[in-house]
Amino acid sequence: MCRWLAYSGTPVLLETILYRPRHSLIDQSLHARLGVETTNGDGFGVGWYADARDGPGVIRDVSPAWNNRNLREIASHVRSPLFFAHIRASTGTAVQQTNCHPFRHGRWMWMHNGAITDFHRLRRDLALAVDPVLFSQIEGSTDSEIMFFLALTFGLDQDPPGAVARMTGLVERLGREHGVRFPLQMTVAVTDGERTWAFRHSSEGNSRSLFFSSRVETLRKLHPDVTFLQEVSDGTRLIVSEPLGDLPGAWNEVPEGSYLVVHPGTDEPGRDHLRAFTPAEP
Amino acid sequence: MCRWLAYSGTPVLLETILYRPRHSLIDQSLHARLGVETTNGDGFGVGWYADARDGPGVIRDVSPAWNNRNLREIASHVRSPLFFAHIRASTGTAVQQTNCHPFRHGRWMWMHNGAITDFHRLRRDLALAVDPVLFSQIEGSTDSEIMFFLALTFGLDQDPPGAVARMTGLVERLGREHGVRFPLQMTVAVTDGERTWAFRHSSEGNSRSLFFSSRVETLRKLHPDVTFLQEVSDGTRLIVSEPLGDLPGAWNEVPEGSYLVVHPGTDEPGRDHLRAFTPAEP
Amino acid sequence: MCRWLAYSGTPVLLETILYRPRHSLIDQSLHARLGVETTNGDGFGVGWYADARDGPGVIRDVSPAWNNRNLREIASHVRSPLFFAHIRASTGTAVQQTNCHPFRHGRWMWMHNGAITDFHRLRRDLALAVDPVLFSQIEGSTDSEIMFFLALTFGLDQDPPGAVARMTGLVERLGREHGVRFPLQMTVAVTDGERTWAFRHSSEGNSRSLFFSSRVETLRKLHPDVTFLQEVSDGTRLIVSEPLGDLPGAWNEVPEGSYLVVHPGTDEPGRDHLRAFTPAEP
Amino acid sequence: MCRWLAYSGTPVLLETILYRPRHSLIDQSLHARLGVETTNGDGFGVGWYADARDGPGVIRDVSPAWNNRNLREIASHVRSPLFFAHIRASTGTAVQQTNCHPFRHGRWMWMHNGAITDFHRLRRDLALAVDPVLFSQIEGSTDSEIMFFLALTFGLDQDPPGAVARMTGLVERLGREHGVRFPLQMTVAVTDGERTWAFRHSSEGNSRSLFFSSRVETLRKLHPDVTFLQEVSDGTRLIVSEPLGDLPGAWNEVPEGSYLVVHPGTDEPGRDHLRAFTPAEP
Repeated sequence: MCRWLAYSGTPVLLETILYRPRHSLIDQSLHARLGVETTNGDGFGVGWYADARDGPGVIRDVSPAWNNRNLREIASHVRSPLFFAHIRASTGTAVQQTNCHPFRHGRWMWMHNGAITDFHRLRRDLALAVDPVLFSQIEGSTDSEIMFFLALTFGLDQDPPGAVARMTGLVERLGREHGVRFPLQMTVAVTDGERTWAFRHSSEGNSRSLFFSSRVETLRKLHPDVTFLQEVSDGTRLIVSEPLGDLPGAWNEVPEGSYLVVHPGTDEPGRDHLRAFTPAEP
Repeated sequence: MCRWLAYSGTPVLLETILYRPRHSLIDQSLHARLGVETTNGDGFGVGWYADARDGPGVIRDVSPAWNNRNLREIASHVRSPLFFAHIRASTGTAVQQTNCHPFRHGRWMWMHNGAITDFHRLRRDLALAVDPVLFSQIEGSTDSEIMFFLALTFGLDQDPPGAVARMTGLVERLGREHGVRFPLQMTVAVTDGERTWAFRHSSEGNSRSLFFSSRVETLRKLHPDVTFLQEVSDGTRLIVSEPLGDLPGAWNEVPEGSYLVVHPGTDEPGRDHLRAFTPAEP
Repeated sequence: MCRWLAYSGTPVLLETILYRPRHSLIDQSLHARLGVETTNGDGFGVGWYADARDGPGVIRDVSPAWNNRNLREIASHVRSPLFFAHIRASTGTAVQQTNCHPFRHGRWMWMHNGAITDFHRLRRDLALAVDPVLFSQIEGSTDSEIMFFLALTFGLDQDPPGAVARMTGLVERLGREHGVRFPLQMTVAVTDGERTWAFRHSSEGNSRSLFFSSRVETLRKLHPDVTFLQEVSDGTRLIVSEPLGDLPGAWNEVPEGSYLVVHPGTDEPGRDHLRAFTPAEP
Repeated sequence: MCRWLAYSGTPVLLETILYRPRHSLIDQSLHARLGVETTNGDGFGVGWYADARDGPGVIRDVSPAWNNRNLREIASHVRSPLFFAHIRASTGTAVQQTNCHPFRHGRWMWMHNGAITDFHRLRRDLALAVDPVLFSQIEGSTDSEIMFFLALTFGLDQDPPGAVARMTGLVERLGREHGVRFPLQMTVAVTDGERTWAFRHSSEGNSRSLFFSSRVETLRKLHPDVTFLQEVSDGTRLIVSEPLGDLPGAWNEVPEGSYLVVHPGTDEPGRDHLRAFTPAEP
């Protein structure tokens, strides 16, 4: 379907993460290894915070990431402590800017890899469950954007894991009501510009791949020669659809049915920050 | 807002109508005279029937019509007896292919110039009134596309003027319920590949401009030197947002609150084919 | 690098050839098997003759072929007896419409798969060899377009194989003068709207793949159940970078260092229409 | 033709200059007052320095500036002490990214409004005069890019005004040799990331409009209520194709046949920094 990454930590030029790794997201746009499709060429998006007080800047384009010169320019001139990047492989919905991730609402950003099964049959019921005030802000036609608006409807602002659980619960329930056996398949990242939450869930219990990077502290000991590790803070963290390289010890799978919270400023995320994720009744 | 034209009659290369007239639609994309905006550069679309039995081909693009080379290529190599063309000036909704006109459903095409006032407030109620089976086929975010889906919901297939009247009636009613004084402003063209209907209506009784061409027979007598008039059949007809030139006697205004039917094969449209148009309760 | 196909014969809807075969050019845009790259997503082009007397219509776009809706519309509504289609994998030059194939000049079309080695070093000398009157019509920055303009300079209009041989000879000579061991790698198709010539050549004697379809007559006997073969004339022929399917007996390799002429109206191309191709001194 | 602006001074969000003024460059893309065309919708570009030591980031796109969401995102999230912005109205050359301004080479940026008369006749001779090493870096097909490469050839790095004078001299001479009465019409801005030079010249002595802003010191006294003037340093300066508003005393015309140097760090540009500009023999 798609591939994405979420970075938070020491401010870096976006290209450090987007272009330089051997199996970078740009490389994944042509040669994904763990995705449903090897090519993710139906548009891309990058959203970054210049400053936690402002909302994010979000660039989205329908062209493939690998040949987009503007993306390269931005990546080599913009520095950020927290950014999302996404490359899209459409499963049929239109290739248009408003269907590219990340989606933004106020200070929030959202991106998704996966799909609601038989979305065309559930779309209307899901759209109706969106807060009427928010409804008119839906601009595209993807399941991913509706999922974001449902999470906003169900209290993303107050309780992100709870809101995502309720969104997930609604999709599961409506799907089953429509006779869909496995209604949802998702890995989702969401951020308010400070903390990032990443969820891995599927009705089938066999979700798309999702990884997070090991503690920088640990990695520095394992790989004293990797310059990048010397330059970033302990709290720096990456969450990715698939590993950006094969540095031993660098990548850990987010377990099925769990979520991760990353917050560079105030805590030390790790195994203990993984929590179980269960859909909830909205 | 936008500008459009609908042609039906003797098969011609699209460029004959789209590029050659002095004040062609392409010229109007840069220098509209009667529109709200002089520039209509937020995308364009052309839909044509190669054959009445097949559905139309529809090309839509977000670039301005005036500099699009593919449009020129198609226009100079495709011949059709019935085609629609539209240039867009967005009033805020995204510039994306799925927001470009004409819209298509089966053998039907639809295009629109105008706006639903405060559409963002009415959008949800209007979307809910669309047949649930059709709902999931909505791809864009414009009022124009929703109007088309409402007309389809209200029987476009059986009774085009009735379906458009019921769509209009719903918009008028919902608008007023939301406290909007003048909910609708529209000139709409719709075709099934054989007949074309063109509607001019606004709540305010002051609609966007709309013109249709005079009988070819009459024009030939007035302008025996105009080659084009010798080459096309008596039943050839143009309906346009604004005249493509200033040939005396060529253009007639569609009166406020009326609609026109054009059917080259079987009748001779004219003044007597203009009928009153009144919104109806859906 | 790229993939292309050239069709000539019974007029067909473009989609018959572009979309329907199992391993169609559209499929090759995502999953090429014999190319240098599996993905050919850096733009595409289609050029077709509506009528041999007119020049071709040429549609080119920077988006991938696989997700371009306008291409699908044209392919399902335009019928032609002779058309070229090309999908591009850029080797570094800009992804822009003027770098997409096929290139057109008057009634001629040209497309290419391959590369001039170290083109940036030869580019100026090659450009200087272009007829000064033609020079100003160069719009893009590819080696392929310069090769076309050199062929035009060297008499494409009078003697296509000779002109291509002289172009090739110049590239080979200039390349060697710049110390390039294997200056050229090419499969080229060129047409005047009636005949199509296809060349396979490389300095190294190891050219990109190129195939042509067997006589329709023969294929009909082999595969009496394939409807398409019943519907097209004996003279119908396809030349392709890689086979569109695996119908036994359908595809023949164009031998290294040879060229093929196809002319549906007047002859029966086949093995005997393959001729040796040798670069010539311009 | 086109419209452009060059800003240098206190680092500001790009939107402060690009979007906020009443008659901003974005407004000029739809409603230019002093240009040849009122619409400048054939692409745009923005180039900015994040830091004087790095080269500029350059974003260019073929869409109109007025409806480009990515431009708005960048403008509202990127801050810079020196940036160029350009909106294009093509006079026939392709609408493609490599024809959009500003052009970049190393730390240099260049943008242009105007035209070489009968460029298609002079193009080859001008291209031949470009340093052969630089030749292969030409990516587009505009006169503006060739002018930049000629200035680079003639010593832009060492002596910007001299290099531009020699480029201009060559165009004037070659033009006259081809029988062109008035070969050149130009307003050009060029920067190395620290200083900006702006030239106004035409063979006819009737160049496109060009303005520079008055000393901030003076303007503060005239307009104590304008917040922006309180926030920027004395050395802040704008050079524009046409004024961004009608603040009395804010805009001064660059005289015909002269050039301006702006260098916020080290001097106080003003009337005395205007110098005569005369084409020189290369």
